[in-house]
Amino acid sequence: MKILLLGFGNVGKAFRKLVNEKDRAKELQNVKIIGIVNSKGLMIGDNENFKVDKKIDLLQAIDEVQPDVIVDMLPANYNNGEPSLSLYLNALHKGIHVITTNKAPLALKYSEIMKEAEKHNAKVLFQGTVMSGTPSVNLYKVMPGQRVFRIKGILNGTTNYILTKMYEGLDYNSALKEAQDKGYAERDPELDINGFDAAGKISILTNVYFGKNITIHDVKFEGIKNINNELINKTREKGTKIKLIAYSDGKETYVKPLEIDKNDPLYNVNGVLNALEIESDIQNTTIIGPGAGPINAAYGALSDLILLIRT
Amino acid sequence: MKILLLGFGNVGKAFRKLVNEKDRAKELQNVKIIGIVNSKGLMIGDNENFKVDKKIDLLQAIDEVQPDVIVDMLPANYNNGEPSLSLYLNALHKGIHVITTNKAPLALKYSEIMKEAEKHNAKVLFQGTVMSGTPSVNLYKVMPGQRVFRIKGILNGTTNYILTKMYEGLDYNSALKEAQDKGYAERDPELDINGFDAAGKISILTNVYFGKNITIHDVKFEGIKNINNELINKTREKGTKIKLIAYSDGKETYVKPLEIDKNDPLYNVNGVLNALEIESDIQNTTIIGPGAGPINAAYGALSDLILLIRT
Repeated sequence: MKILLLGFGNVGKAFRKLVNEKDRAKELQNVKIIGIVNSKGLMIGDNENFKVDKKIDLLQAIDEVQPDVIVDMLPANYNNGEPSLSLYLNALHKGIHVITTNKAPLALKYSEIMKEAEKHNAKVLFQGTVMSGTPSVNLYKVMPGQRVFRIKGILNGTTNYILTKMYEGLDYNSALKEAQDKGYAERDPELDINGFDAAGKISILTNVYFGKNITIHDVKFEGIKNINNELINKTREKGTKIKLIAYSDGKETYVKPLEIDKNDPLYNVNGVLNALEIESDIQNTTIIGPGAGPINAAYGALSDLILLIRT
Repeated sequence: MKILLLGFGNVGKAFRKLVNEKDRAKELQNVKIIGIVNSKGLMIGDNENFKVDKKIDLLQAIDEVQPDVIVDMLPANYNNGEPSLSLYLNALHKGIHVITTNKAPLALKYSEIMKEAEKHNAKVLFQGTVMSGTPSVNLYKVMPGQRVFRIKGILNGTTNYILTKMYEGLDYNSALKEAQDKGYAERDPELDINGFDAAGKISILTNVYFGKNITIHDVKFEGIKNINNELINKTREKGTKIKLIAYSDGKETYVKPLEIDKNDPLYNVNGVLNALEIESDIQNTTIIGPGAGPINAAYGALSDLILLIRT
């Protein structure tokens, strides 16, 4: 299995490391990174230190190295999903599989990408786009045949961290600053804070769990900017908590701050932890784990890679 | 896919119902129950009301109906795993797959069963033996390539219910009686109360998550009989809780009551809920859901059936 890796930031570097630890799984024995490409150009082969061997773009890189699978770890571009979107369609058309941790193309053009994949019998695997290495997209693979009524999650670590810190007494700005200092929040945290990041994730999960074809633009979203310490204190006294909840029942899909009580499985999901609860005719199931971090996102892609080889 | 169903108690009946709800998954279209067998004999075909068509035993039933897969929903017999154990070995020898919710054979003879399966290229699927329909055995299938350090769980619903009720103020005997009245505890709850049931489950999970071949007899176990209200009150005051924890790091495996604090992901797993935490070099992941109930156990087997057809 020959991999072309797109993007070589923290996640790309962590993925490269994981793939080369061959004792992790027997499926990794015949896996090889044959090229790494970013906006500067293509490095042929696999090396810890990136250098440009050919000044070509991502589309050209596919033809140059002819991989079996591309692994997309580029940053999300919510304007149009590019350059990843064109790259996926191009790769899938050639029967090349796609593994991605980049949410934007799937949050914008899920249906188009999946149709192209099906047409050419290629796979698109994207556990790393939602809750990183914590099975959310992939949990569905081992829960077939349930009639899912609704899914509900805490899908953004930054906002959950800020809210957790506010319950510990910090005000909004201090909590945000602490999240930035610890590297949990971006320098420009707007897309986390306003609920847009979680909206992208719940759109993807809606498509997986309900067989829909919605986009991020179908999700009503509201962030945590209006949450003040007065509200935090009031709910603390009542024994409830405000959490930024991503919700879908397949028809209605939204992200908004909601008050939940202590019997809710999401009540104790604190700090940068994420969680997803699945309610079906059979039972309620909740999975909890980190939703971000380079090694976690990279592992999300690694798990997809191993599952791809198995099937 | 032709099924011979073993056992037609509450779980068997729930499984029969689920299998016949064909809209649950496209994989169920070509699934058919061709026989149901219990200690009284074999019913040929699939009918809501059991009647004996042939007075033959379970081993003879396999030859009579020639299924592709046997689904074992018989009660656990921890003395020797029979009659299920002989039946599995017989079926696997003929290349017939085994799906089971019955823990005993796997808790006693895991290695023997798996070797026979491998030799004849047949599958043994057993999600329903641990945490019923909540992915525990099967969660591992979507978490490949992690270096698992330890697993830790609440794997018995009866004892967790009793402890939960004791924290609400009941004494041990009243809590046990309530569990029995609600149908959570058996009339003879000894194997739940003394930790043996959880020991069987953690032995199975140890084999799955660490690639071991241990049996229930390799697990040190201790139950909740010595937990009194004095201890409950003392821990409640400290803000901690006693939970019956099943633990394995692949070397040491035990079940015992442990004091855990409120930051532990198992702290808020109350009532009949079960949970499993997996700690690896990548991250900690926790899954929570019901660990018992006819429909849940039946669903565990249904999910295995669908996964079997997919592969």
